[in-house]
Amino acid sequence: MHQLKKPYLLYLGDAQHPTDAKTACGLRDWCRDDVLGEWSLPAATVSVQLPRLSPAEAAARGAGSLVIGIASVGGKLPDAWLPDLLSAIANGLDLVSGMHTKLTSFPVLVEAAAQHGVTLHDVRHGNRAFPAGTGRKRSGLRVATVGTDCALGKKYTALALTNALRARGAKATFRATGQTGIMIAGEGIAMDAVVADFLAGAAEVLSPDNDADHWDVIEGQGSLFHPAYAGVTLGLLHGSQPDAFVLCHDPSRTTIEYFPDFPLPTLRDAIAQYVTAGRITNRAIRCVGVSINSSTLSDAEWHAYAAAMSSELGVPVCDPMRGGVEAIVQALEALTPPTSAPNAS
Amino acid sequence: MHQLKKPYLLYLGDAQHPTDAKTACGLRDWCRDDVLGEWSLPAATVSVQLPRLSPAEAAARGAGSLVIGIASVGGKLPDAWLPDLLSAIANGLDLVSGMHTKLTSFPVLVEAAAQHGVTLHDVRHGNRAFPAGTGRKRSGLRVATVGTDCALGKKYTALALTNALRARGAKATFRATGQTGIMIAGEGIAMDAVVADFLAGAAEVLSPDNDADHWDVIEGQGSLFHPAYAGVTLGLLHGSQPDAFVLCHDPSRTTIEYFPDFPLPTLRDAIAQYVTAGRITNRAIRCVGVSINSSTLSDAEWHAYAAAMSSELGVPVCDPMRGGVEAIVQALEALTPPTSAPNAS
Repeated sequence: MHQLKKPYLLYLGDAQHPTDAKTACGLRDWCRDDVLGEWSLPAATVSVQLPRLSPAEAAARGAGSLVIGIASVGGKLPDAWLPDLLSAIANGLDLVSGMHTKLTSFPVLVEAAAQHGVTLHDVRHGNRAFPAGTGRKRSGLRVATVGTDCALGKKYTALALTNALRARGAKATFRATGQTGIMIAGEGIAMDAVVADFLAGAAEVLSPDNDADHWDVIEGQGSLFHPAYAGVTLGLLHGSQPDAFVLCHDPSRTTIEYFPDFPLPTLRDAIAQYVTAGRITNRAIRCVGVSINSSTLSDAEWHAYAAAMSSELGVPVCDPMRGGVEAIVQALEALTPPTSAPNAS
Repeated sequence: MHQLKKPYLLYLGDAQHPTDAKTACGLRDWCRDDVLGEWSLPAATVSVQLPRLSPAEAAARGAGSLVIGIASVGGKLPDAWLPDLLSAIANGLDLVSGMHTKLTSFPVLVEAAAQHGVTLHDVRHGNRAFPAGTGRKRSGLRVATVGTDCALGKKYTALALTNALRARGAKATFRATGQTGIMIAGEGIAMDAVVADFLAGAAEVLSPDNDADHWDVIEGQGSLFHPAYAGVTLGLLHGSQPDAFVLCHDPSRTTIEYFPDFPLPTLRDAIAQYVTAGRITNRAIRCVGVSINSSTLSDAEWHAYAAAMSSELGVPVCDPMRGGVEAIVQALEALTPPTSAPNAS
């Protein structure tokens, strides 16, 4: 389990394209209060419109970590970044990276980190071993976001559900399972980096016992219908033992992204298969809603689509970016025992 | 992918209980031609009835590896074994272990191996990285053994199918996915040790393109119905893209072993769920038979059970230990294109 030190300084290196700064934008949008500012090399042309702070200035204002907020090209760490990273280390900041190439594979960083007593966090990679799954029923409530495919809004939906639950006074915690989610939450487990035998066990560790009226909102990974990643999806689903799930989908896709020979299931089939799979560790699992990335639909198309799907499937159909997830949160509230006093956690 | 050097010398250490020698018995029974003999400490009371050869004697007869053939207590390597292991290394033998604790975690063994140019194989652990799955359709035929639970005959059934196919002149290769299977085959991938993101990719590497009439017989792992290990099962299934599968079951079990709160599915439901899951990467997947561990049934009970199940499910129901798997092999032959001349491979 990664445990990151907030608040963050976001590092943009020498980023030239706005899309390179996807991670930084995600952090700015989803945990703005935990971000002090941004820093970059003079060659950078991208900004995420935050106060500009050097590592030393950020450290003086209490920063805990410098987060590499841009996608690296080929996972390699450019030499030009090293002075800034070493300055962050020298000022007592942890480094946080989601790159394939580990920070810990650079001896100069490892040596400096040891010298200054800071930690290098490679959140795409594991940093501990996990036990095998037990299947033991845990207290508290769990909702997972699952998908017809990868990369269509499972993290976004989970964050939106968490915020909406809290806004209504419910107890809710976002449980991060991927690198950006871990940076946003400040903790979590990169499920795809776990050794296969311990997938369900890691998911059990991720959402421990909790209050009877507390919701863990678990970020899904992959898809049961993905030819490469369904094993991760199933292990995470089993270990999460969710009481409820939200199916995420992008209606502009007809096949798995980058896999044109692999058709997507219908939403009805997808729900049925997630229920069948999830019942292994939670007999009461149910679909409480569908979350759609409707960015390719006009307003009229979206309203017609949502109405038709909701009618066919018997659950609310929302787009977090287009009207929010209130209807799904109400379905979750209907599952929440009324015992405890409302309280954010 | 582990590649082991045969033939083997089986090492029994100071084993006191016949059940400790399970691995050695498996190797003796399934690859007798690849085993030169056994060796043990004077304190051992267990033998697997093979010629007794010291590491030096085995090396003189051409042995490639010393295989630790007993289950270790707590995974620790007893100090008393070290002189024999070092003698094997000094005589040019590789060491092969399925223990949790890695051979490579003992500096004295690592140093000696480097000095003598031999390899330490920890077959329970991975020794390389794998690519992500691609879902690309590969040439050749594949049959996988799958289960209602763990530890009920998937390896045994796969080995029996491979031998029976070859005995009838078909091309067939056993593809090992667990430690004992890897030792028997001399190669394979410990699927449960693969990083989760690369499960399907590793399974793709395990059974590459082959002749159109060649069967890869893929040893299954875990069970779709197991609360801890289903992720491994699904990733292996998807990467294997099997044309056919054999469902393995032990009718004396009603729940997952060691998980009394997790009921086993009916055979009909299990087949349906494996078909649904397997169709992601092979639309033509079908169940060609059921393999039963019938050791708890009398002859009369077994015949009645097999007849009833075969009638209900519409596929042959065999016990490899009790009548063999001929009926299933005939079902596989019916799927084999008649193009090439028969030939063992």
